[in-house]
Formats: sequence, C-alpha cells, structure tokens
Amino acid sequence: MYQIGVDIGGTTIKVGLVNEALQIQDRVVIPFSRSGGENVARELAEAIHTLLAQSGTALDQVQSIGVIVPGSIDPSGQVILNAYNLDFHDVPFRALMQAHFPDLPLVMANDADGAAVAELYKGAFVGKKSAILLTLGTGLGGGIILGGKLFRGGRGYGTELGHAYLIAGGEPCTCGNLGCMESYCSATALIREGVKAMQAHPESALYQQTGGDGSKVNAKLVTDCARAGDPVAVGVFDQYLDWLSAACATFCNTLDPEVIAIGGGLSGAGDFLFSRLDELVGKKCFFSTHGAIVPAVMGNDAGIIGAAMLYRDAQ
Amino acid sequence: MYQIGVDIGGTTIKVGLVNEALQIQDRVVIPFSRSGGENVARELAEAIHTLLAQSGTALDQVQSIGVIVPGSIDPSGQVILNAYNLDFHDVPFRALMQAHFPDLPLVMANDADGAAVAELYKGAFVGKKSAILLTLGTGLGGGIILGGKLFRGGRGYGTELGHAYLIAGGEPCTCGNLGCMESYCSATALIREGVKAMQAHPESALYQQTGGDGSKVNAKLVTDCARAGDPVAVGVFDQYLDWLSAACATFCNTLDPEVIAIGGGLSGAGDFLFSRLDELVGKKCFFSTHGAIVPAVMGNDAGIIGAAMLYRDAQ
Repeated sequence: MYQIGVDIGGTTIKVGLVNEALQIQDRVVIPFSRSGGENVARELAEAIHTLLAQSGTALDQVQSIGVIVPGSIDPSGQVILNAYNLDFHDVPFRALMQAHFPDLPLVMANDADGAAVAELYKGAFVGKKSAILLTLGTGLGGGIILGGKLFRGGRGYGTELGHAYLIAGGEPCTCGNLGCMESYCSATALIREGVKAMQAHPESALYQQTGGDGSKVNAKLVTDCARAGDPVAVGVFDQYLDWLSAACATFCNTLDPEVIAIGGGLSGAGDFLFSRLDELVGKKCFFSTHGAIVPAVMGNDAGIIGAAMLYRDAQ
Repeated sequence: MYQIGVDIGGTTIKVGLVNEALQIQDRVVIPFSRSGGENVARELAEAIHTLLAQSGTALDQVQSIGVIVPGSIDPSGQVILNAYNLDFHDVPFRALMQAHFPDLPLVMANDADGAAVAELYKGAFVGKKSAILLTLGTGLGGGIILGGKLFRGGRGYGTELGHAYLIAGGEPCTCGNLGCMESYCSATALIREGVKAMQAHPESALYQQTGGDGSKVNAKLVTDCARAGDPVAVGVFDQYLDWLSAACATFCNTLDPEVIAIGGGLSGAGDFLFSRLDELVGKKCFFSTHGAIVPAVMGNDAGIIGAAMLYRDAQ
C-alpha cells in the first residue's frame, strides 16, 4: 500500500507518493493558488490524480492521505484554525478533501509536527519513544514525540515550542510577546545579532564580507566567520549557543527526551555546533545526564514523508 | 484493600493508611533519623507495622506501599539518586524496603510528582488526562500528568519544571544556573523581591509592618499588602504575576494541558491571584484559548495520598 503525503506551503503544494519502504516514489508540485480552501482542495485533488496517473498507481492502492500545513489544526482534526501564510482561517479542509476522496482516511498536522513524525519513521528518532525536534529557520518550529507517537497537546491544539519563554520580557517575538525561544534561537535571531555586531564593528570579518550591508548577513555567514575565528562572529555565535543550549536544557528538564534533534540550515554546522551545544546543555541540565543532541536528517523530504506517516502515527 | 502512602521529608516521615475511598484512615509520623538508607528503611518498616497494629489492619489487607521523597529516582524505580535534604545519594531504597515487605509492591516517586498524582486521584485533576501542578514554596516543584498518568520523563529520570528557564541569564537559582522558573516564581522569589522593594521604600506598608526587618517579609505579607493597595507591594506582586503567568504560558504552549494547578501557600490568595493570572496567561499564550488555571486542593495530605496512589498510577 502507498501513503500520499501533502506538504502545503505558502507558495507551493508538494504531493508525494510514499511506498512501504518510506521512499518518495513519485511526486508532483503545484503552485499554492491562494484561492481559498475549497479551490485549493480541488486543485490538490487534481494533483493527487495526476500523481497517481503518472506513477501508474490506482487509488485503491493508497491507504491514506496526510496533509501538513504551516498552522494549527483543531483538536478534532477537521479544521485548519489558523495558517497565516496560507491565509487559511477556520477552513474545514478535511471535509473539503474528503468530498474528493470519500473512502480515504485523511489526517492533518502542523508542519513542524509533521517534520518530527518524519524523523520518527525514517530519521533521527527511529526506535525512540521520546524525542523533540527543533527546526531553526525564519521561526523556531518544534515537535514532540512521546510514547512513540506525535504528541498533539493535552487538549489537542498542538504544541508551539518556539513560543516557550527563554528570556521573558526580552526581544519582541512575531507572536506579539517578548522573549520567546523563537526570538533568540531561530536563524532570524542569529542574523539579527550578527547584523548588530557587524554594525558596531567595522573591523569585523562580518563587515568586510558584506560591505556593511545587513541584508547580506545570513546564518551560514555568521557561522562560517565564527568558525574562521573572527572574534566578533565568535561572540555572536557563542551568545547564540548559550541561548540555544538554554532552550534545549528547558526541554531536557521538563520532558527528559531520549533525543533532541536540531533541524534547519544550522544543523549542517556539524561538530562546531553540536559538540559545544551538547557540553552547554550538560552544564545547564538539572539531571546528571541528558538525552542526545543530534542533527535532524530528513531535510527537504521531511514534509512529504512526515505527512505520509500521519495516518500510521494516528493508529 | 488498603494502600500505604509514605512521605519522607527532611525532618519527619509521614505514613498513612489509605482506604478505597482515598481517605487517610490512620497515620503515624516518625522523625527522619538521618541515619542512612538501611536504618531509615528499618525505622519506616517498624512505623508501618505500628500503623497496621494501631489501626487493626493485617498486612495482607495492604495492596502496595508508595514512597515519595524530595529527590530524584532512577528510571528503574529502584534507587533514590539524589535527595539532598535527606542526604540520600544512590540509595537502593526499594530493595532495602522490600527486604522488610517481600510480598508488597513498592513504588517510589519525587514528592512534587506525588503531589500531582494526589491531585489526579482526589483533587484538581480528577477526570483529566493532561495536567500540570506547580507548587510554589521554598522552591518550585512541579509534576506533569499526561494520558491520565504521571509523566516520569522520556528517559525516566523525571521532570524538573522549576528548572525550565524563564529569564535565561537572570537571577541565580539553587541549581547553579541563572534564570530558572524557580528563581522567579517560587515563594522565595516573591519574598526576595518584597525585601528589595521594602528596603528601597521606607514609606511602604511592607516597611512599616516589618520595621524594615527583611526576615519578617513572607509571601502572605506581600500578598496582603498588595491586596490592601500598598503601591510598593502592588508593584512587587504585579511583577511576580507577570513572571508566574509567563511560566504558565510556557507550559500551555509546550504541553497544552487541560488544567494547571497552583499549589503552596500562595494558592490561598484566591481570585486576587487566579483571575489576574488567568487573564495574563491568556495574553501570553499562543493559542486563542488555554487550559484552566486553578488552585491545587490537596494541601498537606497530598504527600500521603499521592504516595498511596503511585501503585495504581503505575498499572
């Protein structure tokens, strides 16, 4: 049997046909049309039929459809409550899709949660019962695995790990509050600090490599300059590691997971990030040992694979 | 059948015989002798026999013994790893007790976890599947209920909610780190801030009621002065509520529990605390709604009742 995994983003919808070996056997990408839930559901249904046709697969060889969105799902699993990037608010997407596929189970999840499920079935969390994924990007997304399954929140509204506090009263967060983990541990936060330090230090490698143009600062540049020993970049990176390790320690102290995986571009920084992060978490953690801190491994396929495994996760 | 609940503290050991109606039918209190694990186990065994004799209960009417300690238990449930107030480190207390009661199951837990179990079976969490207890005292203890059971941590080392960060890099915490929730939300933190404000403001009610003696400032005094409208105490209490609400919001955003209960002396502050706390959590929470924020109700019996229910919780 196949599972269909759907990753709805602000610009494209990726649809993958996932086989029993958890490989994406075939895929289709369509634009996200911003034309409202009903139209998007119809366009997605057409894309699924295209995918099945181009791969020579019959609908009755498909066991389920999983859909991830950058937003929150209601506890009943029927409605996309808020997905700002999609301009979806209170969209009964499950019913809209089941009108096209009445005989197929359809399971939805937040995209960060889907990425955690992908790690659980095929990546850094295989064989684990408890794990946390932190994806460091524009924001800070996260997913929790407990009891070998996606934890969808006690009331079913999901989890928003990026909006745990790290320095209450501190930096403004996109959510409107001050001092969330997202405002200190996202790639955006590292860039913000890099730009600040660059502007204060025209002698820095960061300044020289960007000509003082803040728009040219990105997380990889800050990391590379720190790795090369530029003192200003080292200061920025060390401060960032201090914050990120504090966030990890919070999760170790509250949930004691077997493993925390770090996703997003920064996870490619290798030992330069992970060996120091592990050491800092050890110092900040209440317990004498803590779960492993590792890179996430699923990369760009996390969305489709995670979505495709949602039905299995829900059993 | 009866359950025996044992609450080991730094000065006394409380032993209760708990009946099917979850009432403490009889109890015995002995001093905590600080004489090491083997002696304490023997003294506890004697106390249990005394309790059974004075209540006319036969050992075979007892189903289990539950023991809570102010410290951490190893994942196998055999060993008290660290209980600083008891000077217990790596004490194989389960085996030491089972030498005296070879046919009775014995289950151990951290005292804050035990208090959460007490709320689950008899208090604020009855009928709930997900809940968090925060006990505001000298420190900040906490326990998590998930899936209708005590959550003992992904690896089994337990949870230390007081050592989640609230303002990373901030106030020194007893654990050696800076800025844990405990260092902002414990009763100790409220007293610390009350003393600071009093010393800066000789005109305050806090100063007048204590003659400027910091040792006379306690959490109830700060709360009472704030309730009476003393501007200095109001400032301290408002700041404290801001911190406490941020801690609650962190747990709402990460675990989305149906209910958060606040225990410790401050939980007696009633609406003056809870209605404002609820409003602030609502502002800080990522979700449009959040679980209820209520007072814990088990009070002094939480230890014995929670301990007594550990066996049932473990089934």
